Amino acid sequence: MQLTQYTDFSLRTLVYLAIQPERETLCRIAEITEVFGLSSNHVSKFIHHLGKLGYLQTVRGKNGGFKLAVKPVDINIGKVVRQLENTLQPIDCGLGPCVFLPACKLKGALGEAVNAYLAVLDKYSLDDIITNKSDLRACIATIPTVVELL
Amino acid sequence: MQLTQYTDFSLRTLVYLAIQPERETLCRIAEITEVFGLSSNHVSKFIHHLGKLGYLQTVRGKNGGFKLAVKPVDINIGKVVRQLENTLQPIDCGLGPCVFLPACKLKGALGEAVNAYLAVLDKYSLDDIITNKSDLRACIATIPTVVELL
Repeated sequence: MQLTQYTDFSLRTLVYLAIQPERETLCRIAEITEVFGLSSNHVSKFIHHLGKLGYLQTVRGKNGGFKLAVKPVDINIGKVVRQLENTLQPIDCGLGPCVFLPACKLKGALGEAVNAYLAVLDKYSLDDIITNKSDLRACIATIPTVVELL
Repeated sequence: MQLTQYTDFSLRTLVYLAIQPERETLCRIAEITEVFGLSSNHVSKFIHHLGKLGYLQTVRGKNGGFKLAVKPVDINIGKVVRQLENTLQPIDCGLGPCVFLPACKLKGALGEAVNAYLAVLDKYSLDDIITNKSDLRACIATIPTVVELL
């Protein structure tokens, strides 16, 4: 019942971008790859997706890259999870397919549980997740930024 | 954020066993394999696990098999999910490992969401899931029982 790694690393990246001090350069794929130990192929996919969803402003070209396009207070964690998870179905009734499908009450109970899960996340904005910004910045203080990486 | 297939099919099997009419024979692996379209290897693992957890009474030998060892009203869905899921951690912070680990508030929010998910399931017993027993029985009426399978 874990979030997919895709959603997990997308959220971590939003946190990373939200705690950046004022900087002249945009963030680039190579920086996220370095920070989270991911392949650039993996990172490219969710950066593109977050851009399409309007959370990132992306700029092409030599000095291109991306940054948050929305204030952290306007990024709702529940909404992001709903947008990025490949399914919100609690189980896959199509597996089998399940013989109990026409009369199943299990799916109803599990669906109610998923709704309760999402309702908790709906209470949180990205801003709530970075209230300890200086502690979070300390976590990445030793990581080279894109300037040093290039 | 789906339940694992292991938990999913364990729950389906508990439903299947709970709606059985009075029968002289015990259920066998082959019957569950047939009903849910699973490999016997897969079924054997969760049947053994459900037995170890005390939910099933298992009998070895030629006329052996298994049946519920506990009344459906005494089987709590939240408890079963906690026992069968291989992790209740909402994300795997060990992946990377995550640079934000010492100061992360995301994990707290996601953990609160998982607790809300489980709290909903804690309200349900297996008995609540089979209140429409006759409808559920109709779903499996055309499936051969172990007697016909052997």
